[in-house]
Amino acid sequence: MTVSDEVGPVLAQYPDGVIPAGCPSRAVLDHVTSKWGLLVLVSLVDGPHRWSELRRRAQGVSEKMLAQTLRTLESDGFVHREAFPVIPPRVEYSLTPLGEGLARHLVPLVEFVADHAEEVVRRRS
Amino acid sequence: MTVSDEVGPVLAQYPDGVIPAGCPSRAVLDHVTSKWGLLVLVSLVDGPHRWSELRRRAQGVSEKMLAQTLRTLESDGFVHREAFPVIPPRVEYSLTPLGEGLARHLVPLVEFVADHAEEVVRRRS
Repeated sequence: MTVSDEVGPVLAQYPDGVIPAGCPSRAVLDHVTSKWGLLVLVSLVDGPHRWSELRRRAQGVSEKMLAQTLRTLESDGFVHREAFPVIPPRVEYSLTPLGEGLARHLVPLVEFVADHAEEVVRRRS
Repeated sequence: MTVSDEVGPVLAQYPDGVIPAGCPSRAVLDHVTSKWGLLVLVSLVDGPHRWSELRRRAQGVSEKMLAQTLRTLESDGFVHREAFPVIPPRVEYSLTPLGEGLARHLVPLVEFVADHAEEVVRRRS
């Protein structure tokens, strides 16, 4: 079976097999495959996390980029933000059911890349 | 089964479940999930294509970005470039076996996003 046979009904509807530039899918793809979008989503796979945990897990992300990434993923409906009325304030982020569905496809991709990264780097040098 | 249970051995080796900033995986992930990297890879799923076909399929890509994207994916070992000694010159691009393995994970992700993009856009507005 070729990869092409595995293309589902959504992509198959486009005669060229790719997403036209005007489609909303393009914007959503950009959000979830952006460097930090992807790492934040994968960081939430094992359950809810607080801001400081996410900053640590998505190593290298700035405060500003983490805030912006979480806002985008929340507006898209992939991430849920819950503020607990306690002192000091506590805010937790988690995947929504839609975000879990998405993560189910992101995790194998990240696994594949992580599994082959050394091979790729060896080839480049 | 939670998404977390589906995390394979590669991600599980990192105590935080995400890829440390210095890992080669980060750079490779950036290549394959970049806007044009992803669209070019998905465009090659149904077989080899010539430059002009790829430009049309990855709608919106500039000459410069397509050249740069193909060069990166070729150096990474995901894309094979073949120049045929004919007049006028003919160059075809195709997925390598490694690229096919990668595409197997990209296609379901793109399908999922395309399938839910309208829902996401509705929620945002």
